[in-house]
Amino acid sequence: MHYKGTHYRTVWWEKGTVRLINQPLLPFRFEIAESATYAETADHIRNMTVRGAPAIGSAAAYAMAQAAQNGGMAEAEAAEAVLKNTRPTARDLFTAVDNVKQALKDSPPENCAETALKSAQAFADSSAEQCRKIGEHGNRFIKDGMNILTHCNAGWLACVDWGTALAPVYAACEQGKKIFVFVDETRPRCQGGRLTAWELYNENISHAVIADNAAGFYMAEGSIDMVITGADRIALNGDAANKIGTLEKAICAKHYDIPFYIAAPYTTFDAEAVTGEDIQIEERNGEEVSRMPGITDTDERVSVSITNPGSPVKNPAFDVTPAELITGYITPHGIIKASRIRNIQDEKDNGVIE
Amino acid sequence: MHYKGTHYRTVWWEKGTVRLINQPLLPFRFEIAESATYAETADHIRNMTVRGAPAIGSAAAYAMAQAAQNGGMAEAEAAEAVLKNTRPTARDLFTAVDNVKQALKDSPPENCAETALKSAQAFADSSAEQCRKIGEHGNRFIKDGMNILTHCNAGWLACVDWGTALAPVYAACEQGKKIFVFVDETRPRCQGGRLTAWELYNENISHAVIADNAAGFYMAEGSIDMVITGADRIALNGDAANKIGTLEKAICAKHYDIPFYIAAPYTTFDAEAVTGEDIQIEERNGEEVSRMPGITDTDERVSVSITNPGSPVKNPAFDVTPAELITGYITPHGIIKASRIRNIQDEKDNGVIE
Repeated sequence: MHYKGTHYRTVWWEKGTVRLINQPLLPFRFEIAESATYAETADHIRNMTVRGAPAIGSAAAYAMAQAAQNGGMAEAEAAEAVLKNTRPTARDLFTAVDNVKQALKDSPPENCAETALKSAQAFADSSAEQCRKIGEHGNRFIKDGMNILTHCNAGWLACVDWGTALAPVYAACEQGKKIFVFVDETRPRCQGGRLTAWELYNENISHAVIADNAAGFYMAEGSIDMVITGADRIALNGDAANKIGTLEKAICAKHYDIPFYIAAPYTTFDAEAVTGEDIQIEERNGEEVSRMPGITDTDERVSVSITNPGSPVKNPAFDVTPAELITGYITPHGIIKASRIRNIQDEKDNGVIE
Repeated sequence: MHYKGTHYRTVWWEKGTVRLINQPLLPFRFEIAESATYAETADHIRNMTVRGAPAIGSAAAYAMAQAAQNGGMAEAEAAEAVLKNTRPTARDLFTAVDNVKQALKDSPPENCAETALKSAQAFADSSAEQCRKIGEHGNRFIKDGMNILTHCNAGWLACVDWGTALAPVYAACEQGKKIFVFVDETRPRCQGGRLTAWELYNENISHAVIADNAAGFYMAEGSIDMVITGADRIALNGDAANKIGTLEKAICAKHYDIPFYIAAPYTTFDAEAVTGEDIQIEERNGEEVSRMPGITDTDERVSVSITNPGSPVKNPAFDVTPAELITGYITPHGIIKASRIRNIQDEKDNGVIE
């Protein structure tokens, strides 16, 4: 999508260099990080310069290409080991690295550099294309004048382009539909107020940041027509793990009979989780709640303490929204009911869906 | 209640001086502000050194006593005008000031100083006593080992002593019951993370601050046995206005069949609001959401920007929880069902309840 009118992806290849939007600096500074070697690209993945499963996957694929171009299969294998250790729970990273390695194996060594880059590029392109399709399908639900609530950042910054939850919003706006987005700030890490708001601002889409607590208020007064979020992992029974607070929004949406959609590529569907109970919820550092980073009026980046010193903090990073609260899944292949997820898995297993 | 083991009220009288806990400095610094004249006390009310309806009412009553002691009825009347202009929507302030004035009218001028102080002291004592009774009644629901969720600060800092939502917690702990309190940080102003956490910490009550988003997660895993909040205003049909986010907690509590109580003195019941729709919701400054005050590691108080610059913010300060989501009201006279609020109003009107 765009920054100041120019089209960007979150990560891309330019003559051997991997370029990435430096996300920890957003929304206060827009900078492109770059890396000339696979090791530097791995560092960027580790340091979270890039975030979001599809974007991380693409960065890793490009890193494999850097390794192959520099030192052929031997260096690609070294890169594989390094990359798989950067973010060991990032599923897309493993897929991306394995894809490039398989492509290398399948082609003659003299084409190594070209093959690796082609495979990496295909991974990034397919990721962007899947998100574009999510937008296309989701857009069918969006009527002119609608107000949409979203939680966290499932926009293009988390993907290569387009995003998941925000892709339908972008598709609708491209068709000239006027919509308004309520952006949950999404405590504790505030990816909504920082990243989703930044994205919508740069696409000139009407929006407002709200405290997470205010979503129920706007639902109650009838100001929210639809909720769309992303997901981190979707179980076979249709339960979905996503950023903490998604569950509360889904319960409130149900209470007020507001459609609640989750937008996700098929890589998010996890055949190893039978129900949401199989998804382990990470408890993260309490300082995410007790401290707040930001910038001062003199443009200094500081982190301040905001809770009672000495009081303990609990900080579960995700929650699981049960299938019965989810109106439907917006996928690259169309809309599916949560109850049909198991069929999707079967189709994936049988090679019907790539 | 206590700070470092010493008993305090939020506001008290000491030989003509009004002393108040300087609440904007909490939780990072504990300081007692003082004022020698009614005008200084009025300034403290205006500047929110003191907050919470009952505490504000007591400060205003003491200010009237300061005026009467210094300049009799004439100065008391001047004080009345000044005080009623400090926080014009604070209902208790008007009651308190009118009480003292009526007492002055009913007694001979030579007893003026004594009469005013007696009336002011009675207001503060009665306020503390009402909260203590709320604690006594609420405590009946609290079993040893319970986990309780609260939202915002409805503790002793908002009252003269004891608090409303926290009074049952304090009463239970005084009887040796072991309980654990989940403290919603309560964005945007974080009164939970700052003030409720400070109170519980100083009473040695087990607690943890959570992002507001995490309450649903803990309800889903069965870790929350009961929710207790305060209220800002309660309508005749039992709908209650309280800090933004209370509605979401009530909806989630209903979803998981968790009892949801509101603790309030009778002064919070408003006969002029027939339903929650008659309660107007204040939209406050967006900077409460887009900026965050706190202290740096070098103990400096600063405020930092935390959302995308340029993105609009919406900031409703309260929401209305409909009566059907409220299990019951914990009042100084006992527990009442939301559906019986109208009777309470009738009893008040008929002088059955003072």
